Amino acid sequence: MDVRAAVALAAGKPLEVTTVQLEGPRLGEVLVEIKATGICHTDAYTLSGADPEGLFPAILGHEGAGVVVDVGLGVTTLKKGDHVIPLYTPECRGCPSCLSRKTNLCTAIRGTQGQGLMPDGSSRFSLEGRKLHHYMGCSTFANYTVLPEIALAKIREDAPFDKVCYIGCGVTTGIGAVLNTAKVEIRSTAIVFGLGGIGLNVIQGLRLAGADMIIGVDLNDAKKAWGERFGMTHFVNPKDVGGDLVPYLVNLTKRGADQIGGADYTFDCTGNTTVMRQALECAHRGWGESIVIGVAEAGKEISTRPFQLVTGRVWKGSAFGGARGRTDVPKIVDWYMEGKIEIDPMITHTLTLDQINHGFDLMHHGESIRSVVVY
Amino acid sequence: MDVRAAVALAAGKPLEVTTVQLEGPRLGEVLVEIKATGICHTDAYTLSGADPEGLFPAILGHEGAGVVVDVGLGVTTLKKGDHVIPLYTPECRGCPSCLSRKTNLCTAIRGTQGQGLMPDGSSRFSLEGRKLHHYMGCSTFANYTVLPEIALAKIREDAPFDKVCYIGCGVTTGIGAVLNTAKVEIRSTAIVFGLGGIGLNVIQGLRLAGADMIIGVDLNDAKKAWGERFGMTHFVNPKDVGGDLVPYLVNLTKRGADQIGGADYTFDCTGNTTVMRQALECAHRGWGESIVIGVAEAGKEISTRPFQLVTGRVWKGSAFGGARGRTDVPKIVDWYMEGKIEIDPMITHTLTLDQINHGFDLMHHGESIRSVVVY
Repeated sequence: MDVRAAVALAAGKPLEVTTVQLEGPRLGEVLVEIKATGICHTDAYTLSGADPEGLFPAILGHEGAGVVVDVGLGVTTLKKGDHVIPLYTPECRGCPSCLSRKTNLCTAIRGTQGQGLMPDGSSRFSLEGRKLHHYMGCSTFANYTVLPEIALAKIREDAPFDKVCYIGCGVTTGIGAVLNTAKVEIRSTAIVFGLGGIGLNVIQGLRLAGADMIIGVDLNDAKKAWGERFGMTHFVNPKDVGGDLVPYLVNLTKRGADQIGGADYTFDCTGNTTVMRQALECAHRGWGESIVIGVAEAGKEISTRPFQLVTGRVWKGSAFGGARGRTDVPKIVDWYMEGKIEIDPMITHTLTLDQINHGFDLMHHGESIRSVVVY
Repeated sequence: MDVRAAVALAAGKPLEVTTVQLEGPRLGEVLVEIKATGICHTDAYTLSGADPEGLFPAILGHEGAGVVVDVGLGVTTLKKGDHVIPLYTPECRGCPSCLSRKTNLCTAIRGTQGQGLMPDGSSRFSLEGRKLHHYMGCSTFANYTVLPEIALAKIREDAPFDKVCYIGCGVTTGIGAVLNTAKVEIRSTAIVFGLGGIGLNVIQGLRLAGADMIIGVDLNDAKKAWGERFGMTHFVNPKDVGGDLVPYLVNLTKRGADQIGGADYTFDCTGNTTVMRQALECAHRGWGESIVIGVAEAGKEISTRPFQLVTGRVWKGSAFGGARGRTDVPKIVDWYMEGKIEIDPMITHTLTLDQINHGFDLMHHGESIRSVVVY
């Protein structure tokens, strides 16, 4: 079938909006009409050519929501008309990772997904007979796409596509890092580095978890109002701090009898490895945990003195917020529909597919929190 | 009173065994007759001058066992005749750290202990009128010493001093890292780097926890028999591995349906920052935890790609095995007396105080697992 898509023909070039061909779903696969998709930094990272694992030509996009229009043989948990969110981290419920109960990083289709292919090793997309790569197993920059059944979360039908598509990546990554990875307790202190689309969701996750002190750190003063909008209690612009940032933040978190200071939980949402180190080192001696969420540039490394760990700090990472997609994403949609979390104010721009490159520009210029393409 | 002690007069010099003066216990303090003390790498590290926080002259030693001979005013939990193990990590049960239930790193007397002083800011030891520093709050290289009540674990009276003194550091550090810090579950896979006094205790901790696969890594083939003695199931000498050690170890830990490999838990007991990185990177994707136990040289840093954390590995440290000394050390003494853990074979040399410098030589030459001085 012919579908409309924004195609990444080559690294560093704008996307080209055109008509491509999509084959129907095979065994265990589902055809989904994408109704809306967010534009995420990860799409931009791959499009820029900086991602060493990036493949071209490809149909990018991994933060979508839509409706099932057809199912392949063997599909048992989804049917035509179901509303779904694509999952770049699937949940097969049968692989050693899913069965471990210790990680969300399902490995059932990891190999082929990394190669831009469906689990059977082929692609469903083509452009004038030339194969196009799938992207992160999702390819939501097309108004129809094919996904494995295990990579789709079934959600309630009253949830608006143009908002809950954001749960496909940013919302779940931020809130999940708080609830699943860090398991933040009520009354905790926390520091969030980087108040973009992920950082703001970490902040609302902390509010949901009942954190007492939620410190946001960003170089852009305009982010103060944004952070406060979602529960941030203190804002720090490193440019305004005379001297080192780490002791400043440690001092800020001293409270009550505890004159040691340091946050119970810290979150890096910048991808900057220097910031990741600062985030670890302003975690509380004895028990502070620092969660790396941001994706670093290829080849960059994090460092610290091992003393930081021996004195009780823990260094962790979080991917897709530690969420098991099919199980947890529908719950996050419920939280949104029940008013427990907010999404609407974060979606600063709604675009058509033809405007998708403008969405990337808005992100690069820091003018958007999230742009959503509505088909 | 006059006491016999091995005094560290200056960095890099042998200890001098002589008679020093000890004042009696003040408010909240306890006078202990030390019956036996182990010689640990940490004593050697400080004596060498490499420890930037080392103070001289001092009475070193932090791995002892003895009997209470007098108590100061206000002491309520110990009395004359009680058998005790000194704790370089005290347990006050009242500071924010003790009350957190998240760490064993009591901060009640951290400041003065680091300055080589008793909590009131003075020293009890002197040599010909010249003040001597306490060491790690213990100073067990003297046949009598004074400690705060909160830095003494009361133990059963039938436990032999010349064996359970080792619980004052090495045994608890190794076994505790497994049980308290990593919380290893039955059927786990684990890799232990460095099969010295700490590593062997990690191994017997893993055996106690029911680990299935316990891989020991050491450059010295003589450690194979030692590791097997305490439960090691596989031995790897990196010299015998063609190519990189990390993929070799990852491959070795593949089992059943899990073709990803990597250990559930890894432990660095070397203090070498390159090994610490290897230990992290051969932890299992998704959930593997790597515990830093070894103390690195001053100024050395650990590094890795943040991708290692984002894909689910956790980097932690452990000090004194995460043990709350007054609560946990008596239990470990019980485990020894009940035959659940072994200590006797690890104590390879028993010396008199006059032979203490020989004990350091044995350690430096790798000829001892543990030397114990019996007074």
